[in-house]
Amino acid sequence: MQQKATDAAVGIRIRVATRDDIPAVARMLADDPLGAGREDDTDPLPAAYWDAFDAMQDQGGNDLLVAEIDGAVVGCLQLTLIPGLARRGMMRGQIEGVRVDHAFRGRKIGEALVLTAIDRAQTAGAGLVQLTTDNSRADAHRFYERLGFSHSHAGLKLALD
Amino acid sequence: MQQKATDAAVGIRIRVATRDDIPAVARMLADDPLGAGREDDTDPLPAAYWDAFDAMQDQGGNDLLVAEIDGAVVGCLQLTLIPGLARRGMMRGQIEGVRVDHAFRGRKIGEALVLTAIDRAQTAGAGLVQLTTDNSRADAHRFYERLGFSHSHAGLKLALD
Repeated sequence: MQQKATDAAVGIRIRVATRDDIPAVARMLADDPLGAGREDDTDPLPAAYWDAFDAMQDQGGNDLLVAEIDGAVVGCLQLTLIPGLARRGMMRGQIEGVRVDHAFRGRKIGEALVLTAIDRAQTAGAGLVQLTTDNSRADAHRFYERLGFSHSHAGLKLALD
Repeated sequence: MQQKATDAAVGIRIRVATRDDIPAVARMLADDPLGAGREDDTDPLPAAYWDAFDAMQDQGGNDLLVAEIDGAVVGCLQLTLIPGLARRGMMRGQIEGVRVDHAFRGRKIGEALVLTAIDRAQTAGAGLVQLTTDNSRADAHRFYERLGFSHSHAGLKLALD
């Protein structure tokens, strides 16, 4: 179903993030048309980012992946494995927060990240990988459809006070 | 932002599910136009449902809620709390597998379940509650929009082999 990584991974290393990667990830989250208004990558970084990373570690099945080129962190995504009863007890892999450093666009870093996440989810036994993408991100829709994703669902969000 | 539970909860008890609730939940998941083809509520129930429930318990922050009327389980949903770095380290509440027993439709059981999930997510510190709903479920879209959800995103899925 999904496209396989071929030349996508040349020179790109995808690995699970450590605490040392948090500032680079926060910077990429902020360097985005939608992220600009809702992130804060000031130095020192707000404690909420570090706390969130710790909460991810504590939960289990909730990993931040980063892409490295020549030792520099140039991309990230979050992959959460979600067991559940639906679809005969099928585990889902959920992707959030996919970002690539603007200076490194066009080098298939996003593709390498997403294909790695798909592989990890499949290896863990997931039957589905899912994500939502803002209606305004037309390029992202095309990117995911090219990787085999189907726009089968509506993504609904409710902001809490 | 979200609608408050008012008369929705009369006679309905929402609680966290136990293992004893799994057959009733599997039955409701199967008794659905889309679920019919992808669930299996035969007796004995496939082990995958029990295993998935155990995996949810092991993960933490991943609860199955059920609605009871007069001691009978008549509705369910899954609420997963997902910490993450995006949006200044904001936790998300994710809803999956919302079902109400057909014989009990029109009694605001779905509303009581979703409002309870929202309250639980908010109490746990989440800044957002999210879900996807199949493009074919027009009634569900209206239901969630009435509860304050916004159709701001596309929901993309990739089935794994």
